[in-house]
Amino acid sequence: MFTKILIACDGSNGAFAALEKATALALLAGAELYVITVYRHHSILEASLSMVRGDLKTENLDDTMRTVSREAAESAKAYARDKGVEKVHAFIKGGQSARTIVAFAKEKGCDLIVVGSRGLGSEEGYMLGSVSHKVTSIAPMPVLVT
Amino acid sequence: MFTKILIACDGSNGAFAALEKATALALLAGAELYVITVYRHHSILEASLSMVRGDLKTENLDDTMRTVSREAAESAKAYARDKGVEKVHAFIKGGQSARTIVAFAKEKGCDLIVVGSRGLGSEEGYMLGSVSHKVTSIAPMPVLVT
Repeated sequence: MFTKILIACDGSNGAFAALEKATALALLAGAELYVITVYRHHSILEASLSMVRGDLKTENLDDTMRTVSREAAESAKAYARDKGVEKVHAFIKGGQSARTIVAFAKEKGCDLIVVGSRGLGSEEGYMLGSVSHKVTSIAPMPVLVT
Repeated sequence: MFTKILIACDGSNGAFAALEKATALALLAGAELYVITVYRHHSILEASLSMVRGDLKTENLDDTMRTVSREAAESAKAYARDKGVEKVHAFIKGGQSARTIVAFAKEKGCDLIVVGSRGLGSEEGYMLGSVSHKVTSIAPMPVLVT
């Protein structure tokens, strides 16, 4: 029923719960798994900082974000492979989280997006689960919020 | 991976897309399927109306809502049975949609809730998909928004 599943992963505990479900679903449905880790560009922040605090070393902030994101994505890929998912692809992208996730899902023809919420199971989720809310709002395909 | 799936169904096209996915998932996972149709109580509306427009026949509004809801739930159950899901249970409940859906899922020990969004796939979803947003916010279990 699902052929290409996209799991959005940031290395957090909430994202790991989502990864577990996405992996189990991929195995059950015989689907390919796409892992995406999205990071925010910090170039503008860097530019502002350099004007007021030229002494701070911020030039590598984007590089650091990319490295951390790459690790999160590769670690998720390794987990899914280890569980037996045959086709797993890991990607990192810079940009606004929800829009980047949905654009990537469309680009790859994914028929399901899996995202973690903060898993609070309470009213607080309203404030905290903004990425998962936005993904469910703008995605044309089904979204599993774990 | 899922053993008891709850599908929230109101007879709309959006809910039918959700029902299709829930049915396919139940078959794939060998899960039981719970169908719930939630209707709003109109007793308070009736009481207000009867004071200003005593001539309007509103006394059967709740009955009508129950009948329509029962039809939607039974129709969804018939669809899932027809597709081959062995264990399907249909229920109707009066109350606030999202809270009633989540409370029912907890009561029955469901490990997945499937809800339809308006499926607009655009910013407009922010306003229109309020039930699915609220369900994802307050549910302690995974929620599939179709």
